[in-house]
Amino acid sequence: MDIAQVLHMNVGDGDYSYSNNSLLQRKVISMTKPIIDDALTNLYSALNFPKTLIMADLGCSSGPNTLLVASELVKSVYKIRQKFGNDESPEIQIYLNDLPQNDFNAIFLSVSKFRKNLTNQMVSNNSSSPCYISGVPGSFYTRLFLRKSLHFVYSSYSLMWLSQVPEMIDINKGNIYMSTTSPPSVIKAYCEQFQKDFSTFLKFRAEEMVSEGRMVLTILGRQSDDPCSKECCYIWDLLASSLKDMVAEGLIEEEKLDSFNIPQYTPSPKEVRNEVEKEGSFMIDRLEVSEVNCDASTGNNLNLSEEEDVQGYNMGKCMRAVAEPLVLSHFGESTIDEVFKRYAENIKSSMSREKTKHINVTVSVIRKG
Amino acid sequence: MDIAQVLHMNVGDGDYSYSNNSLLQRKVISMTKPIIDDALTNLYSALNFPKTLIMADLGCSSGPNTLLVASELVKSVYKIRQKFGNDESPEIQIYLNDLPQNDFNAIFLSVSKFRKNLTNQMVSNNSSSPCYISGVPGSFYTRLFLRKSLHFVYSSYSLMWLSQVPEMIDINKGNIYMSTTSPPSVIKAYCEQFQKDFSTFLKFRAEEMVSEGRMVLTILGRQSDDPCSKECCYIWDLLASSLKDMVAEGLIEEEKLDSFNIPQYTPSPKEVRNEVEKEGSFMIDRLEVSEVNCDASTGNNLNLSEEEDVQGYNMGKCMRAVAEPLVLSHFGESTIDEVFKRYAENIKSSMSREKTKHINVTVSVIRKG
Repeated sequence: MDIAQVLHMNVGDGDYSYSNNSLLQRKVISMTKPIIDDALTNLYSALNFPKTLIMADLGCSSGPNTLLVASELVKSVYKIRQKFGNDESPEIQIYLNDLPQNDFNAIFLSVSKFRKNLTNQMVSNNSSSPCYISGVPGSFYTRLFLRKSLHFVYSSYSLMWLSQVPEMIDINKGNIYMSTTSPPSVIKAYCEQFQKDFSTFLKFRAEEMVSEGRMVLTILGRQSDDPCSKECCYIWDLLASSLKDMVAEGLIEEEKLDSFNIPQYTPSPKEVRNEVEKEGSFMIDRLEVSEVNCDASTGNNLNLSEEEDVQGYNMGKCMRAVAEPLVLSHFGESTIDEVFKRYAENIKSSMSREKTKHINVTVSVIRKG
Repeated sequence: MDIAQVLHMNVGDGDYSYSNNSLLQRKVISMTKPIIDDALTNLYSALNFPKTLIMADLGCSSGPNTLLVASELVKSVYKIRQKFGNDESPEIQIYLNDLPQNDFNAIFLSVSKFRKNLTNQMVSNNSSSPCYISGVPGSFYTRLFLRKSLHFVYSSYSLMWLSQVPEMIDINKGNIYMSTTSPPSVIKAYCEQFQKDFSTFLKFRAEEMVSEGRMVLTILGRQSDDPCSKECCYIWDLLASSLKDMVAEGLIEEEKLDSFNIPQYTPSPKEVRNEVEKEGSFMIDRLEVSEVNCDASTGNNLNLSEEEDVQGYNMGKCMRAVAEPLVLSHFGESTIDEVFKRYAENIKSSMSREKTKHINVTVSVIRKG
């Protein structure tokens, strides 16, 4: 089973993966909304009030937020059209893309409810834009769409996933991700894999997009130039630490740990800029960094210690959903509960010591003519 | 639960529904192939060697034949391109449509294997047409695609399903479909429901297709002008007979039987022609009737009686897959096995008395300019 398959094995089981953590994703959508609105407004006038708009959500996942993105896109177009005083509604096609293992059936079963809600939310039924949904299975590191067919591309919390674990010449001893104790060759392999994957992504999207087409991409990233910066690596260090303890206790073989690495790379805004400029097909319109607190109040009137417990529990659950398929396929079923019990404890105790936050890098780009 | 949902509840469970009976569907595809080739050849030159071709398979179901249709379409384009000596491969988008209850996950999991097979079957890798697959959930009696976006539409063994059971003013006493003993008002209600549904289908496709676009539709139909003709009604009469026996034995309430009707209509070529001409957006290029024997030899070197047993068993299985969701939702779980045991026996004994065949009506139409 390849990494991509493993990563999506449990999508649809819950609401806790990165790209579909309900609360987190809602925050990200609401933070990205002004950037999306801005991109769509400029697109709409650059294309001279098009009769059809074709959009794609790449790495859409499956859960309550999948169609929330689609809904925001349609509502945004509706408002822009009103702003321009344009009478004719464009018809909108939204492609929802994820790996073939994603639960498209679950998304498709909620499409008719989504349409009904959308119509109710628009001021006037007749003037709302008809919206057609379709599902596109496949990796976004390959071609997915016809040439010059897309006007707008959106992707949130997906592009930090690499197409594979980087090939390493040295063992990443005692680590499962980039760390201050990783050999320089490991850090280099991770950086190069990101560069290769992200530029492949840009190249294929450039083929698929019309001139003046827009992309808004939000990637789990980092502020620091240092790829081993704590802000992005710490959460994986905590998992590595759980696994190392289990190696020390003879519960996991050392070789197993040595050969386990997370296929993720959280880039800095500078790296994102570099790749976009190097690839050359897109012009950067906006490049922004934002923070999302993972330990915001639960809003349940708990005391501090209870709050920390709940937040730690939630974060543990989220990270289990993200990491479980990878851990399961590498270490097997027998150790899985123990690994995540220890990981959750590590997360909880870490969160009680300091604030945890996600760094998002959002880039809005324009397809050159 | 509406009829459309019920009809698709067990799609994906097996290989025996009308639209995905492996052997039957393969026969239908191979019989329809010359008509498809002809339509695509004319389309290809009418569109002046297009760089992209956008096609849809409406009512694609889920099973081994779903991607077989896509594969035949791509191979057909490949041959046509060679015939015209056209160097540049068009890129092909194929939309697979069915109701949201269809198992799209199963289809999507086999897409990458399908692409690999396709490439292997083409003479030269470089000159094969890239093919993009996407899934479109929804009833084809509604709009599904952007305006003027489709070049070619295909549908096989789907359009005989009505959008609902016709509304009847009289009870269809002792019957579950049109029958020689049905009140004239029931026959009229069935005919009108077909006319309404089929013209709705044509109207929406006309909006979605480009000028000169082509559709090839194969519908389970009949040769006779009489909608109660044995060729199309007999198979349902056998189910009605099983249900009536169970009413006589007190196993099913009479009112339950009286309120059960199959939402299907198998049109004659004349009715298909009438609706196409009345709706007015399409010109008929070809209209053909073909027969598929349901009792062709199994090829297993059996004696006559064994052959009959196997064929009867297969037909029973096929009809169970088609009818079970409807019977289950109306009569409940407790009677289902007994109903289909009796139905299978009726089918077997009928097939030993006379040949059973399906009548297909295939129409190839052109979107007027």
